[in-house]
Formats: sequence, C-alpha cells, structure tokens
Amino acid sequence: MAKYKTLNHIPSGVLNASDYESLAPSFISNENFGYISGGSGFDKTLHQNRISFSQYNIIPSVFSDVRNASTKLELLGESLEHPFLLAPLAYQTLAHKNGEIATAQACEATDTLMVASTLSSYTMEDISKNAGSHKWFQLYLQDNFKDTLNLIKRAENSGYKAIVLTIDASVQLPSRTAINAGFKMPNDLYPANLTDLTPSITETIDEQKSEVFRIFAKNVINKEIIKKIKEFTNLPLLIKGVLNPNDALALKELGVEGLIVSNHGGRTLDGVPASLVMLAKIRQVVGDDFCLLFDSGIRSGDDAFKAIALGANAVLIGRLQVYALCVAGALGVAHMIKLLRQEFELSMALTGANSIEDIKESLLQKG
Amino acid sequence: MAKYKTLNHIPSGVLNASDYESLAPSFISNENFGYISGGSGFDKTLHQNRISFSQYNIIPSVFSDVRNASTKLELLGESLEHPFLLAPLAYQTLAHKNGEIATAQACEATDTLMVASTLSSYTMEDISKNAGSHKWFQLYLQDNFKDTLNLIKRAENSGYKAIVLTIDASVQLPSRTAINAGFKMPNDLYPANLTDLTPSITETIDEQKSEVFRIFAKNVINKEIIKKIKEFTNLPLLIKGVLNPNDALALKELGVEGLIVSNHGGRTLDGVPASLVMLAKIRQVVGDDFCLLFDSGIRSGDDAFKAIALGANAVLIGRLQVYALCVAGALGVAHMIKLLRQEFELSMALTGANSIEDIKESLLQKG
Amino acid sequence: MAKYKTLNHIPSGVLNASDYESLAPSFISNENFGYISGGSGFDKTLHQNRISFSQYNIIPSVFSDVRNASTKLELLGESLEHPFLLAPLAYQTLAHKNGEIATAQACEATDTLMVASTLSSYTMEDISKNAGSHKWFQLYLQDNFKDTLNLIKRAENSGYKAIVLTIDASVQLPSRTAINAGFKMPNDLYPANLTDLTPSITETIDEQKSEVFRIFAKNVINKEIIKKIKEFTNLPLLIKGVLNPNDALALKELGVEGLIVSNHGGRTLDGVPASLVMLAKIRQVVGDDFCLLFDSGIRSGDDAFKAIALGANAVLIGRLQVYALCVAGALGVAHMIKLLRQEFELSMALTGANSIEDIKESLLQKG
Amino acid sequence: MAKYKTLNHIPSGVLNASDYESLAPSFISNENFGYISGGSGFDKTLHQNRISFSQYNIIPSVFSDVRNASTKLELLGESLEHPFLLAPLAYQTLAHKNGEIATAQACEATDTLMVASTLSSYTMEDISKNAGSHKWFQLYLQDNFKDTLNLIKRAENSGYKAIVLTIDASVQLPSRTAINAGFKMPNDLYPANLTDLTPSITETIDEQKSEVFRIFAKNVINKEIIKKIKEFTNLPLLIKGVLNPNDALALKELGVEGLIVSNHGGRTLDGVPASLVMLAKIRQVVGDDFCLLFDSGIRSGDDAFKAIALGANAVLIGRLQVYALCVAGALGVAHMIKLLRQEFELSMALTGANSIEDIKESLLQKG
Repeated sequence: MAKYKTLNHIPSGVLNASDYESLAPSFISNENFGYISGGSGFDKTLHQNRISFSQYNIIPSVFSDVRNASTKLELLGESLEHPFLLAPLAYQTLAHKNGEIATAQACEATDTLMVASTLSSYTMEDISKNAGSHKWFQLYLQDNFKDTLNLIKRAENSGYKAIVLTIDASVQLPSRTAINAGFKMPNDLYPANLTDLTPSITETIDEQKSEVFRIFAKNVINKEIIKKIKEFTNLPLLIKGVLNPNDALALKELGVEGLIVSNHGGRTLDGVPASLVMLAKIRQVVGDDFCLLFDSGIRSGDDAFKAIALGANAVLIGRLQVYALCVAGALGVAHMIKLLRQEFELSMALTGANSIEDIKESLLQKG
Repeated sequence: MAKYKTLNHIPSGVLNASDYESLAPSFISNENFGYISGGSGFDKTLHQNRISFSQYNIIPSVFSDVRNASTKLELLGESLEHPFLLAPLAYQTLAHKNGEIATAQACEATDTLMVASTLSSYTMEDISKNAGSHKWFQLYLQDNFKDTLNLIKRAENSGYKAIVLTIDASVQLPSRTAINAGFKMPNDLYPANLTDLTPSITETIDEQKSEVFRIFAKNVINKEIIKKIKEFTNLPLLIKGVLNPNDALALKELGVEGLIVSNHGGRTLDGVPASLVMLAKIRQVVGDDFCLLFDSGIRSGDDAFKAIALGANAVLIGRLQVYALCVAGALGVAHMIKLLRQEFELSMALTGANSIEDIKESLLQKG
Repeated sequence: MAKYKTLNHIPSGVLNASDYESLAPSFISNENFGYISGGSGFDKTLHQNRISFSQYNIIPSVFSDVRNASTKLELLGESLEHPFLLAPLAYQTLAHKNGEIATAQACEATDTLMVASTLSSYTMEDISKNAGSHKWFQLYLQDNFKDTLNLIKRAENSGYKAIVLTIDASVQLPSRTAINAGFKMPNDLYPANLTDLTPSITETIDEQKSEVFRIFAKNVINKEIIKKIKEFTNLPLLIKGVLNPNDALALKELGVEGLIVSNHGGRTLDGVPASLVMLAKIRQVVGDDFCLLFDSGIRSGDDAFKAIALGANAVLIGRLQVYALCVAGALGVAHMIKLLRQEFELSMALTGANSIEDIKESLLQKG
Repeated sequence: MAKYKTLNHIPSGVLNASDYESLAPSFISNENFGYISGGSGFDKTLHQNRISFSQYNIIPSVFSDVRNASTKLELLGESLEHPFLLAPLAYQTLAHKNGEIATAQACEATDTLMVASTLSSYTMEDISKNAGSHKWFQLYLQDNFKDTLNLIKRAENSGYKAIVLTIDASVQLPSRTAINAGFKMPNDLYPANLTDLTPSITETIDEQKSEVFRIFAKNVINKEIIKKIKEFTNLPLLIKGVLNPNDALALKELGVEGLIVSNHGGRTLDGVPASLVMLAKIRQVVGDDFCLLFDSGIRSGDDAFKAIALGANAVLIGRLQVYALCVAGALGVAHMIKLLRQEFELSMALTGANSIEDIKESLLQKG
C-alpha cells in the first residue's frame, strides 16, 4: 500500500472520538497499526486500562444549570481551554508524513497543550513553531547527562513551558502484537532531536542475554538526577509514569511540580495495574492541591470525566491522536479533540458540573 | 418491503411478552428497528438496564394463598387494574399506520394507563378519544413557554389526568445503532400536537459545533418552570427522567406529585447508571408514601415484580409496546400487556404477595 | 427414528455420571430430549442451579485415613447404603419402554432409594415389586381429596416407606426448550396410578386466559391439608419443593418429617434462586437434626458432596437417571449410580471424611 | 509423525517462556500432548490454577535501584542462583529421546535445581551424573516399604540433596483430555528406577469397580511412614501435594523440612482449589521461617513473582519444562529457564525488589 493514505477531509460517519480507532487500520499498514495499537507482552495491562473505566457510570442531575459552565483550567501557571493534553508519542511520521508538525497545528487550532516527545521525527524547534503557546517537552534521560541538560536548554529556548520526565520506559518488553504484525522500526526513522548523539533510552531487552538488572540499573531514575534537573532549569518539572503511591509521595517531597499517573498505555511492562486503579490512591497521598495528571486508557470524553472525578486535574491522550493523524492529518487530530471535548462537556452538563473543580467522585456510580 | 406488515391476528408461538422483541424485526424495516431498539452512543446503559434485573431472583413461598390476590392499585387518585403503564413513545406511526390510536385502543381494552407523548403522530385529542379513562399526557417544554402552557391546557381539556414532564431528553447523543441501520427520520413524520409551532426539544448535537453547554443550558429544567407549571394546572405533575437521589428529594420538596426513575431506556446519554441501580436509593430519600414509578429495561412481568420490590409503585413499558404494535397492532399491544400481567401475577402467586403493597425486597434474593 | 434406541450394554467411554447427559441425545428424539432437558421459561434457574456448584471447591487433606469410611446413612428410620436417591420423574416411558420398572430394577441392584412419581407410566404397585426395600411415594394432590387419600393408602399397601408431597408443581410456565424442540405430550401417555380419575396437577397456564391467581389458588397447599394427610397416614411425610426458609420453619412446626430443598430442576417457575443458594439458609432455620434433602442441579458426586457439606442429609438425582435410562435401561441407571457413588467416595477420601456426618462446610473453599 | 521432531536449535519467535506451550503441539503427537497438557476430570482445577494468577497485578516503583539485585536464595542449606526448580515429571522420554538426561543437562547449564521423579525413564544414577550439584529426588511410596527405603538409599548414594515425598498422586481421576486425545501409556515405557519391582503409585480408579476407599486407604500417607523415613535418612524431607492448612501444620510438627503447596498441576483430583488460593493461608500457619515451595500453574516469571509475594520461597515448573524439552531438547529447557528468569528479574526490577526476601504481598494489587 502507499506509505500514507491520509484524507484531506474528515471522513463521514465519525460520531465519537473513538471512531478514529476503528478507521485507522484502513489508513496505515498492518505493521504500523500493530506497533501503535499493541501493548507490551500479552496486552494484559492494555486491556485492564480499558476495563477499569467500565466499572464506573456517571450519575446525571436534573437541575444541572450549565449556562456558566466552562472547561477552562489552570495548570502549572498556564490557562488552558480544556483538560485534554496530547501525550508525547514518538516518531509520528509512522502515521503521517508531516508527523508532529501536523499534530502541533491541530493543537494550535484547538487550544490544546501538546507534549512533544524527545523521540520526535521533527525537531522540538520545528514543532514549537507550529504548536501554539501551550507546549511541554517530554524528556528521556540520555546516556551522557550533558546531553540531557542540553535537551532541557533547547526546550527552554524554543518556548516549552514545562519538562515532562518519563521514567517508566527505560526497559520495555517487546510488544507481541507489534511483532506478530511484522513491525520493524524503519531504517529512515531517527530522533530528530538527537542527531548529535545516539538515542539510548527505550532499550528493548534482548531475550538472549540475561542482563535485566544491569540494563535496568543503568537507566533507573534516582533522586540525585531529579535534583540536578530541578537545579538546572526553572521550568516546572513533571514526572510521567507513576503508579505507586509511595513513589508519588517521594517525588512530591523532592519538589517536582507535577506527576502523571501512567502505565505508558500498557506499553512498558505487561502486568502492572490499570492507571485508573491507582489514581485515587495517589491523589490521596499527594493531597488536593498538587498537579496530578492521568494517562493510559482514555478513549472518550466520558473516560476523561471519570479520571478527573477520581482525582486527575487533566488527562493525556495517546493512541487516539495517532489514529486521527493517520486518517486525516492535522484536521483529523483537531476533529478528534473537538469530539472528545464535546463528549466531556456532555458529561459535565449531564451532572451539572460547571467547572473542572466540580467534577467529584460523588458524581460516579461504581460497579 | 411494504411500509407496514402488521398482522391482524396474534402470531403463534408467542409465549412471553418479550417474544414480541424477537418478532419485531420481521415486521418493520431494519432502519426503523434500529431506531427503536438502539440506545444512545455505544448502548452501554441499554445493556446495563438489562443486566441489572438478572442480579435478582424471586424467592417463592409454599403457603402462598392468592385466593384474594389482586394487582389493583391506587395511583395519584386513579384506581388501576394493574401496575403496567405504557410509556410515552414518540411517532408511533413508525411502527403501525394507526400509531398511537391503536395503542390507545389496546389500553382501553386492557384497562391500562397510557401516557401519550408530546411528539405523537396523532393529536392528543384523537388519542384521548380512544384511550379509555386512564391517560396521562407527557410534556416536553417548548421554546415558547406559552406553547408549553397551551399543551397543558389542551391536555386538561381532552381528559388527561396527569402531566408527565420529561426532563432527560433535552440533549441526546445520536444512537449508533440507529445510524448504522441507516435510520433517518422520515420527512412525513411530524408531531401532530405541534403543528402551530416548531418542535424544539430533542435537539441532537451537531457534532461539528461545540455548543454543548449552550444547547443544554437552553433546555434545562429549573425550579421556576416547575413552580409555574404547578401554578398553572391542577393536574398532578410527575417528573420523568430522574436518576439522582438528590434531585429526587429536591423535586419532592418542590411539590411535584410523583417521579419516574428512568434513563429513557438508555436512549439519552450513554454511560448513566441502570435505572434499577438507582431506584432503591431514590425510594429511600423520598419515603414510602411518595408516588415513584420505574422505567427503563422492563421486558417481563418478573422484571416489573423486581422493580416494585425495590421501591416502585408501578412501571412503564417502553420498547415492548412498539414491538407488539408493529407485529399485530392494537391486538398485539393488548396481548403483550396480558402476557406481562400473567407473568407478573405468577411472580405474585409464587411469593404469596396478595397485593402490590405486599411486594417487598425481602422477596428477592440478590446475586 | 425408532421410538427407543436403548443399548443392552454400557457404552464405552463413559467416565463420569454426567457423560450420560452427553450421550442421551443420540438415544431419544429431539422432542423428548427437549422436554427432559429443558427448564421452564428461559432456563434462567436451570443455569443458575449449575453455576451455583461451581462456586465451591473441595479442600483435600493429606492424612485422610478412609480405611473405615462408609457412605451409609440413616434416613427416617431406613438404613441406606449411600445418599443418592432417585427423584420422582414422571412418565419414564418417554425414555425407555420399561420406564419406571427399569429404574426400579436399577435401584434394587444398587441399594438405592427410589421415589416413585404419582405420574408414572406404570402403577405404583408394579414399580414397588421391582424396587427393592427402599422406596418412597411422591404424591400430587388430586382435585378430590378422597383420591389423594386413596393414593396414600395404595402406597402404604404396596410397601412404600414415606410420602413425598410435591408442592411446587401446581403451576408451571411452559418450557421454551421443550416447545422449540417440538415436544408434545404423546396421546398414549397417561398416569397409570390415576386411571380412575383425571390427573389435575401440573396445570400449564393457558397464555390466552388471565387466570393465574385462580389456578394457583386452586392448587395451593395449605396447613390443613398437611395436617389431614399426617392424621391419615403413619408414614413419614416429606415436603418437596421448598426454597424459602420461612416456609421450612413453618413446615417443620407442622410436624412433617422432612423437607426437600428443590426448584424442581428449574422446571416450574423460571427466575427462582438456585436450590444450593437457599440450602444453607434453610438448614440454619430447621436445625441440625431435621431431615433435609437436596434436589436440583446435581450432575456429579462432587456436587452431592458440596450439597451435603452445605447442609443436606442426602440428595435426589433427577435428569441423570432418565439420561442413563434412555441410553442403557436399568443397566445404564445402575451404572450411572455407581459412577456417582465413586465420584462421591473420592471426594470423601480426598477430604478424609469417613462418614456422611463428617462432610462439613469447612471442607469447601468458596469463590 | 516421526516419534520425535525436536529441533537442535532454539526456534525463532520465542519471546516468552510460555511460547513453548504454543509450540509444543507441533513437536509431539496429539496423544502425548493431550497427556501432558490435560488435567484430571474436566480440567476445572487446571483452569482455576491459571485464573488465580490473573487476580493479581504487580505495582511498579519508580526509584527501584537494582544495581545490587540478585535472585539468589538459600534453600535447605543449598545456595541457589534463582528460585525456579524443575518439578518431578514422569517419563520424559514421551517428549524427547534423551528424556530426563536432557533435562538434567539443562539444569546444570542454568544452575537450576532439578527434582528427579521416581517414575523417570532413566535411572536416578544416570540423571544425577548430568544434573549438576543441585538435585533432589522425588519419592513415591512403594508397596513394599523396603523398596521405598532402597530408593532413598540410592538417592543418597547418587548425590541427591533432599527427598520430596509426593502424597497427592495415590489416586487419580483419568484425564478426559488425555483420553479424548487417544493417549495410551506406551508399552515400552517403564520406570527405570523400579526395574526390580512393580510401580504401584498413580493407580487410576477403574470406573467399573467401586473400590475407591480400598485403593485410597492402601496408598494413603500416615504419620508413622513419615517418621520412619525421617529416621532412615539424614536428607531433608519435603512433602509435595499440600493444599490444606491443617495438614501443613501437622506436617511441620512432624519435623519435615519443607512443604510444596501443589495440586499436581490439576492432574490428580478435579475440583480441588487452585494452589495459589491456598498458599497464603498455608504460609500463615507454618510461619515465616519454614521452607514453603509453590507448584501448579506457573507459566511465566511474573507468576513466580506473585507466588513468592504470596508466601513461597521458590517455585516448581512443571509442564513448561516438557514443552521446551520436546521443542528443542536440553537447549530448549535451558532457554525456557532463562526466559522465566528474565521475566522474573523484570518483575523484581520493576518493583525495586533486590532480593527474594524483598518480594512481599504489598507489591501486588489484587482484583
């Protein structure tokens, strides 16, 4: 098939944001769809992410007066129109020839905060020019700490407003879905941000060598690194990939500005709990006033409502952005965000929530 | 296919009221069956309605003496033969050429209370002439409040005994089932009650415009409107579409005469809880002596028994009436009601309940 | 197909008693299999009977010393070899030309207590001659109480040791499984015990007439009838068809000698709880020393072990006896009983239970 | 098919230890695969073993520093590299012409403790020569106790370090899976250790003879036998096949050095609980310092992590070793162990567990 089959219009019949998931296989190769859609290992965590949302229903209210309702929120000093952030996804040219540039344009068009990945197909500088004013930079630690600091410096210089340090991707189990689909990372894909150095993160374990502890130890985060990063930059620092309440407390005490509860969309280590299962426990330990975001498993505005009701300030959208990107480029991504937002607003209207702060666990019925 | 394939006799092999659901697809077009059977969105709430009933079994009693048993009940001053009311369903000419007239005839023949819809294919006056003495009028708020009051006045004048204000249909998510079946509202369908004004309720959200809050705010119910309606009419006022115990209490305190726990058969907003899950909670807050009806998910007399055991005074039958209508017209609807009633009487006989009041939660086994 | 295809030997490959269920469809017509295997209505209770057993596992014990183990028990003055009774099943010539005579022969061959049905294809006198010393007579109330008493008198005269009064079959919902299989009660089937009178029990509700309460009231048991029966006969009286703990207590207080917890194998009224779910509750109210039997859902010796652990003194086997009967006649029934008994003994050996009394709920692991 | 189709290299596409289960059917006959894969009876316990692991997820930790992590452990005086032991599996020449010899070579190559079976295709002396320094001998009681003692003596003489007395295989229900696959024990298979005597254990109940208690009583373990074995040998004695906490306590009090919680991989008596369900209860009664191993249901390193978190010191691998053996002989077994170990190390790294002792139930999320 042609490398890209992207439409330059929104296809008919898209009623919900999740319809882009159903459409995507017609717009990219099986191999790439396998890579994007698959979780690690046997997809156990991937499925648990989805199941976790179905445990909750939303209780509507009759007297909901939403004449003054708004989805606006403040997040680490930024005023956002809505609580949907685009998660940092690597190598978006797998889905669309303009990759992160198209995604950035959709973000600008929809007042959406974009989190640009270290492993992007375009440079963070090029992405920044297209992304509007709300943009954060996602950071992977580099082998050489000077390289890490240099990435932060470039992010500052090109207008990113926060650093999102991902800490759960240092070791990945291969995705059986991707392997079964025949996916191989194309030779012409390279991280545009890292042309001067070899990308070292996301090291897949070679199943023939028993080096688990060695690889893990090499890549593990520690408190010193976080302190050094915080000393180096004045940008807010968020940590992405937290599932453990003890970790959450320790990170807060280290002075990081925010946390992202995430299991990397079920892509790192199969068998960890659903993010949603851990969210409320983590909110409990970090307290009400701490910036806590949610990632992994959201496919609708209702899902976002549930995550916020259970403790998140805002949510990150992962796979759906790539699905929309391959279907209809920047236009598709913008449309997908609009649908998510409408679904979310409907949940707010339904429950009478006039603001993000109004969205509480009491609006959910469990089980 | 011919527009209507209705039989003029009861088909053989109908053992249970729910058999009309299985038969219906042979008597109407796929498109119309999709519209009638589908819930909103992904049918999540539709399915949860059904599952909720399967959580309960009915505990029989040996010494059940039902020689004096009766299904009679008093409801807002009316003496009814049985607790099955026909829910207000719009545009019944989709199912049968005589539409609501046929339904009304079946109600008269079976001593059944009919709730006529604002959005009927025939005028409320014509329906009333056929419906027997037990009939209520279901009201949608009109854009112009004078039009709303005029509908109430006409209902009074044509003999309706109560007003049922529906408050959960102001915004609907499109039914994916209906859309996938290719359903489009026929051009020649119009609400006969509203020929002098444009129907404004049941506004489907245009997915291309982010106007959720605006539409919702425009249509939302508020306490002033309810007070004005109560001042305007001496008919009892019931509110249909309540799921939230807080709302139930507030509405009771506003002086409404009754509530209908309902999620509109899973047709308004996908993801709200099953009606049955909220019923007992609502009975608890409104107290024992308040008129509380149940709607959404009933497909058998046993289901009705369970809803009454969990706190309802009576139940409304939605989809089954249209299924029976398209299969065998007035005769089918009358037969369907008779089957429901037999199934219900059997549950009463089984448990030794001699009256509706005898039906208590202690007669159910959960889980 | 030929009316009967019964083998005169045990077929190969029968490893478990339940294998007779798999084999039966090859040995009787679809219609008859539908009638025998089906439950009432939608088979909801039938399935719940089966599921209820899967909720429990049996905890084995290492030091189980079963050198002196025995399955013997005393039941209402009779010394039985094992706790498997054959339930009263009507019209066994549907399955085998010798019907209850063959079943009786199997009982004698395996020291099994047979409960002969009022609605048998052969007379109770003929059955008694073949059934060995352990035999009870199952009684349906007749329209004319003198006929009822006459049946009891005949049972006494022909050597039956107890009367089992069935009280849950006065009203039945038709079995959809039987109807869908095209089953009709053959014209040449009649209850041999009742040649002088019209059989009146097991009246199926005509779906066209709303006479539920009338039929039910006519057939219902009451305390006076039970007292009269007890005055009339010195045989122990058991009541079959109890699911409600309140009923169990009332019946015990009336002086009946035993109860059979049963939902008629899911054949009377669909939607009542699984027998096993009610068993422990009933044992609790009647106390440890009262004769309490279990019926409905047993397909293996393990199932029997679980029912006894949860409070039964012994169990009745329903469908399996007819399945074995149609496959291999008396030989099949005897073999089926032997397999059940081996499976049961294995559960005893496994847990170290040396007697029926040793089988306690602590030997089960729930969930 | 040829009797053995074993590869002399590791096949491509093996990502997880459990892949050997998927590959095995291509490398052995259906009959033998049925025998190896099947559980007893209806495989109820076999399936519950698998389901029990899916009830738990592993909670990762951010600050996991595994630079000094190790999977080493002390077990009854032996220093092991990792907690995976190979369970005693009978007649391994069913899977590979070199049978236990190949398995022993894989154990030596991977520093794995092998538990050699009484019913091996090669003599324990031959196996010992190939097995490296960590090896235990699994003992079945023989009809003649002198034969039993002679087996222990030979085990001592050939370097085995402990005796594992299996007590749950004295009676087995036939495996329906094996029977349906047409499996028959080949005539040329015999237990090499027992050429001078008839093997008496693993007596399958002949379904035609009601001799359950007799057979069971003959083979049952008792406290005297255990005391005699302990007096006879100085080797540590472990008991394999414990599920009952009462038994566990009694055995500990008898002075045995260790217990193996096991339901024989679901192969003995269908319907007993999953091993994992009983594990924590047993750890509770034997206390923290007692050697408690886990067997039955492990198919991955994560499973092993969960069993250890719930109370096991180490785990035994059953079916996977035969699957790997038939696919690629000693090489396959060694590779399978390496994969298990990597999966296990990843779970440790993920949670920050630096040693087997660090693996606690608090690292699991249930449900």
